[in-house]
Amino acid sequence: MAVARSMRRTSPISLVLAALLAFGFICFMLSPSAPSASSASASSQQRQENAAEHPLSPPTKPFFKSQPVRSDGYKAAPPVVHYDLNSLTNTPDSIANGERVLILTPLARFYQGYWDNIEKLTYPHELISLGFIAPKTREGNAAVAALEKAIAKTQSGPIDNRFASISILRQDFEPPLKSQNEKARHAMSAQKERRQSMSRARNSLVFTTLGPGTSWVLWLDSDIVETPATLIQDLTGFDQPVIVPNCFQRYYDSSKKKWDVRPYDYNSWVDSQTAQNLAANMGPDEILLEGYAEMPTYRTLMAHLPDMKKLDPKKMLALDGVGGTALLVKADVHRDGAMFPAFPFFHLVETEGFAKMARRLGYEVIGLPDYFVYHYNE
Amino acid sequence: MAVARSMRRTSPISLVLAALLAFGFICFMLSPSAPSASSASASSQQRQENAAEHPLSPPTKPFFKSQPVRSDGYKAAPPVVHYDLNSLTNTPDSIANGERVLILTPLARFYQGYWDNIEKLTYPHELISLGFIAPKTREGNAAVAALEKAIAKTQSGPIDNRFASISILRQDFEPPLKSQNEKARHAMSAQKERRQSMSRARNSLVFTTLGPGTSWVLWLDSDIVETPATLIQDLTGFDQPVIVPNCFQRYYDSSKKKWDVRPYDYNSWVDSQTAQNLAANMGPDEILLEGYAEMPTYRTLMAHLPDMKKLDPKKMLALDGVGGTALLVKADVHRDGAMFPAFPFFHLVETEGFAKMARRLGYEVIGLPDYFVYHYNE
Repeated sequence: MAVARSMRRTSPISLVLAALLAFGFICFMLSPSAPSASSASASSQQRQENAAEHPLSPPTKPFFKSQPVRSDGYKAAPPVVHYDLNSLTNTPDSIANGERVLILTPLARFYQGYWDNIEKLTYPHELISLGFIAPKTREGNAAVAALEKAIAKTQSGPIDNRFASISILRQDFEPPLKSQNEKARHAMSAQKERRQSMSRARNSLVFTTLGPGTSWVLWLDSDIVETPATLIQDLTGFDQPVIVPNCFQRYYDSSKKKWDVRPYDYNSWVDSQTAQNLAANMGPDEILLEGYAEMPTYRTLMAHLPDMKKLDPKKMLALDGVGGTALLVKADVHRDGAMFPAFPFFHLVETEGFAKMARRLGYEVIGLPDYFVYHYNE
Repeated sequence: MAVARSMRRTSPISLVLAALLAFGFICFMLSPSAPSASSASASSQQRQENAAEHPLSPPTKPFFKSQPVRSDGYKAAPPVVHYDLNSLTNTPDSIANGERVLILTPLARFYQGYWDNIEKLTYPHELISLGFIAPKTREGNAAVAALEKAIAKTQSGPIDNRFASISILRQDFEPPLKSQNEKARHAMSAQKERRQSMSRARNSLVFTTLGPGTSWVLWLDSDIVETPATLIQDLTGFDQPVIVPNCFQRYYDSSKKKWDVRPYDYNSWVDSQTAQNLAANMGPDEILLEGYAEMPTYRTLMAHLPDMKKLDPKKMLALDGVGGTALLVKADVHRDGAMFPAFPFFHLVETEGFAKMARRLGYEVIGLPDYFVYHYNE
């Protein structure tokens, strides 16, 4: 009950500011008579028109441009416009099928490396919408300000770099920790509260931004600063309901005097009997956490699996828990109800609880031990 | 595991058709030079402009109407447009605060009585968006066709009757029961499968249609044919996170030779020790169902509480389970992650599981034993 009470203090979450940015392509949509610049080929014009039907605003074209005027002076109501989503697929051939991807990022801090990395993604940007949620703290304000600056640059830059649409949501509850200092954030005692708060942020984001045109949701943390440029093609290519790459970190090994990599995210794992026994003896509101010496689970951690001498980026592994630093989900899995439990769900919360829930809904959860994304090194 | 397999056959749910209808007000938005009819007062013009920012399409106004043209002939990217949702509230004074309501209806059959009833709701229609989801069956097709006919009439009728926006989603999985015959639908053996399928439909609907501007979600089944015209004002007036009226049914009592009412929905209840003991001895995939003689739970059923001689429509009762025939939810409760579990959640599914989940998230669940809505009598 103490948990319920402490959670209620932050409830109801309400979004106090949704800054909806829709740049670039959309203005072309409604100005068919604008002078066509020489660089705008027929095909890029076509892509601009597609971009306007982005998933966050399905009815941007809900009417014909010229409506007949009725006898009473009103323009007549437009006829029923059907958005035929028979082609709403999620397939290995995602680009050819024009599948829209929604990248969702809980914004703790803004890293230029994060933005530079998503700007370099080679999946067609007119098929990518971005959604952010940031806390209403000084740090959150600073992150949003920096993000908006980066957005303004990209969205007024070359057409091919511009994203279909961008939404920024602001949560009105305080995050449980004032400091985003890494040590404080990872202290085991603070983890439960922190991850329950993060669950609420993730749920607000996906419930609010998922539209009828979204095929895939890519969860990408704001401190992921390096991925392959083909990340979306690669991950959609596996055609799995839920798939998670391995999140590592680059660091300078001062003993060997060279840069090396090390595991960062320990939340992707295969369950163990030890962990299940621990859970069986827990109270209903206690949770299991991974990556803490105080609570050895003996789960098989994906972070420890890669053999750096013999990597196979296509290798797949069925998982029971996932981390959310980078996580691709078919939109249908969310539509079926899979979300990030802010309450202990089989003694799991947030992304680990999400994996359990996806499996309860009958979906497989897959990890890619030898496919890497990299976390910022604080 | 058998359950997981049988559920996977219907997965992944994908929406094969989203017919997005946006009528009426929107066309006025983008035609400021249209001749103003004498009946369009300044205030109704204002309301029409508001209506265009409906929750399903936040970026309908993402640009200024006239963009400067850059030297290269492109119109300049519009500046960042902030949709300031500081005013996104959910309060007892919902109309004065212009709070948007999303009415969500899983469409099994179309009843003219359902449509006539929502058309009579006195909550300002420009603040109401409607969302439907229908199965891809012959019955579903017929229901959608009838619905579209009703929509066309209302949305081209008097301005005050028109709704802000309407979305129709089609699910591509077969409902578990071909027949919507009442007896077949209620057979206990079919209930688990039916309600898991209904959970998926409800989740698809809320994940896809909830937008950043939505304050309240009113779940209203397609066979609810009579409510007070002030339903939304009345329910929002209680200012509760989750609130459910009592669902009854009118019938002709042939012995007494007069019309009378009787309870219909038994899913709103206060838990009992008997039910908890039953649950404690169940396997992880078994569920409790209410309203079946084969499984007496001795829960306190809201359906049985009203004393018809002494009604108090303001009387509130804390509940553990709710039915979904009519159910008002603050949008923030969904944004926090509360959904309709398609898997046994504390041995509960669908709306009853939703109530449990809302409570796990720290929200109260309230019933109104003496406030009635009426179900169609088959």
